[in-house]
Amino acid sequence: MTDISTLGEFGLIDRLTEGLTLHNESSLYGVGDDCAVLRYSTDSGDTRRVLVTTDMLMEGIHFDLTYTPLKHLGYKAAVVNFSDVYAMNGTPRQLLVSVAVGRRFKIEHLDELYSGLRLACERYGVDLVGGDTTTSLTGLALSLTCVGEADADAIAYRSGAHATDLICVSGNLGAAYMGLQLMERERRIFESQQAVPETAAQPDFAGREYLIERLLKPEARRDIIGRLREAGLRPTAMMDISDGLSSEVMHLCKQSHTGCRLYEERIPVDYQTAVAAEEFNFNVYTAALNGGEDYELLFTLPLACNSRIEQVEDVKVIGYMTPPEEGQKLVTRDGTEFDLKAQGWNPLRE
Amino acid sequence: MTDISTLGEFGLIDRLTEGLTLHNESSLYGVGDDCAVLRYSTDSGDTRRVLVTTDMLMEGIHFDLTYTPLKHLGYKAAVVNFSDVYAMNGTPRQLLVSVAVGRRFKIEHLDELYSGLRLACERYGVDLVGGDTTTSLTGLALSLTCVGEADADAIAYRSGAHATDLICVSGNLGAAYMGLQLMERERRIFESQQAVPETAAQPDFAGREYLIERLLKPEARRDIIGRLREAGLRPTAMMDISDGLSSEVMHLCKQSHTGCRLYEERIPVDYQTAVAAEEFNFNVYTAALNGGEDYELLFTLPLACNSRIEQVEDVKVIGYMTPPEEGQKLVTRDGTEFDLKAQGWNPLRE
Repeated sequence: MTDISTLGEFGLIDRLTEGLTLHNESSLYGVGDDCAVLRYSTDSGDTRRVLVTTDMLMEGIHFDLTYTPLKHLGYKAAVVNFSDVYAMNGTPRQLLVSVAVGRRFKIEHLDELYSGLRLACERYGVDLVGGDTTTSLTGLALSLTCVGEADADAIAYRSGAHATDLICVSGNLGAAYMGLQLMERERRIFESQQAVPETAAQPDFAGREYLIERLLKPEARRDIIGRLREAGLRPTAMMDISDGLSSEVMHLCKQSHTGCRLYEERIPVDYQTAVAAEEFNFNVYTAALNGGEDYELLFTLPLACNSRIEQVEDVKVIGYMTPPEEGQKLVTRDGTEFDLKAQGWNPLRE
Repeated sequence: MTDISTLGEFGLIDRLTEGLTLHNESSLYGVGDDCAVLRYSTDSGDTRRVLVTTDMLMEGIHFDLTYTPLKHLGYKAAVVNFSDVYAMNGTPRQLLVSVAVGRRFKIEHLDELYSGLRLACERYGVDLVGGDTTTSLTGLALSLTCVGEADADAIAYRSGAHATDLICVSGNLGAAYMGLQLMERERRIFESQQAVPETAAQPDFAGREYLIERLLKPEARRDIIGRLREAGLRPTAMMDISDGLSSEVMHLCKQSHTGCRLYEERIPVDYQTAVAAEEFNFNVYTAALNGGEDYELLFTLPLACNSRIEQVEDVKVIGYMTPPEEGQKLVTRDGTEFDLKAQGWNPLRE
């Protein structure tokens, strides 16, 4: 018998889905990207495509209810699912939500969770159309499925990048990870104080609100998808950054058969992230490269788009794709070149 | 704070989904039936519809790994999901599977689970197109989403029945429930013997193979859907029987605004089910009315279809719909009339 940790999440998925083929004419693309791609039109010339993605979130693995309000959890679970549809250059339209709850859960808890789910649906224009509600022997389990759409020509797969393409990211990275460090530290302090509410020090997150918000209430970058469309820019490849920049760039390289050169100093980092990293004695770029849950977009564009992408707000060019034989490289601030390593968050590795 | 058990599954779903409205033109029907119904064609006259359904299965609640082989579990989980698509008079096309596993799970266990999932997909012509694989702190959790299709005119909602419509069921009922009783009894015997493998009595299921198969390896009634189509019969309302006949008939009545009269003696029961019921000192019709997990189809047809449906193999007419003011009635073998009660399996009730 073999431990799952020996394969890791992606090795395991490769093994479990090995040799799968698609037989139905409505199945266009299966396992291996942010969404599956389907076609459900009687007219075979119709370019409208259906995107489907699903995520499972387990208590104690993906979230800690000691510092995650249920409304925030519902909001985040939905948004993270929508993010997978945007990451294909699509628009999320419907959400299905399954929830399994243990006995300590009361109706009011589920009301809270659903208020967050509903708020996310409302803000992103998504309809809640189904799901399943059941019991669990212990913790809370959530499973969300999002259905969305895209035009066939607009869909950005992970496999579409070419050598010389620019590598771009939206927003900034590492903030959710530093938010998690802050929360975990507060939880430990709280626990060590034996939790007498009147005497326990209240956590002070002044000046770190942004980090906490990035952790507990991330947003999907619908705005970036809109800006790229307005600027007439169509990503050659795209995915969202859920596990960490390094690991995601390596996915793009693997699926596009390219190498890459990333420039550390170009990786966008927020001021609060930098301050918190210093306080925790972390290299801020390590947090930005390997911290997960930022849900920013990572995408590639033809080199010729350079001047146009520089006009797009809140997007940074952080490197470029190379031929595969040049490897996957990170160039640090002092000009040293390293092999990129995927140390992203992986729930199936020890 | 209010216990979830005070509402039950359906009360809870009503509360959580109260006031939900659909905003996207691609969302045609949301919560309340076996599947959500979507339209993803650019041509608004296109009658092709997309069906989506999702199910969550938790260890210790929906299955017991002490007597459920993982391959069977995978097969059943997929088939149960497909059954929801057939229950709309549709055809399942794609499946997404999310799995969360605890540390005691090895790769070989997942291989087993996936061999069952793959077998079901192969047999039913469904493509496995995505999913999620992660860790659980406790037991095994499964979440499946099936996407299928149907022609707009063919879709059978729960709400389409009329007073005087015939109520029909496929196959026979109560077998999976008696299979569960057998398995639970063997588990208790095994546990009381302290599980020394060499001395423990091996369970003898001779003559009860059918009950065990109905429990561990149910099939979705694709064949019935095909036969109805061939016979030119279109159900006015339909759903699959997962929780028990009484509770499902009551759903049809509620959503179609009808009453009903069911005739106990017409409810189809297999010989093995009857024998096992006698052995366990159960009323076999109680098992057939309230036992869940048969995954047979329950549907209604216009009264005028009576002679044609009698020609369809493995379908029985068990009663008819009535005006709502006549109530939901069960007529026993001796002609006594009772109010129908939903005592079906409900994971959210005590």
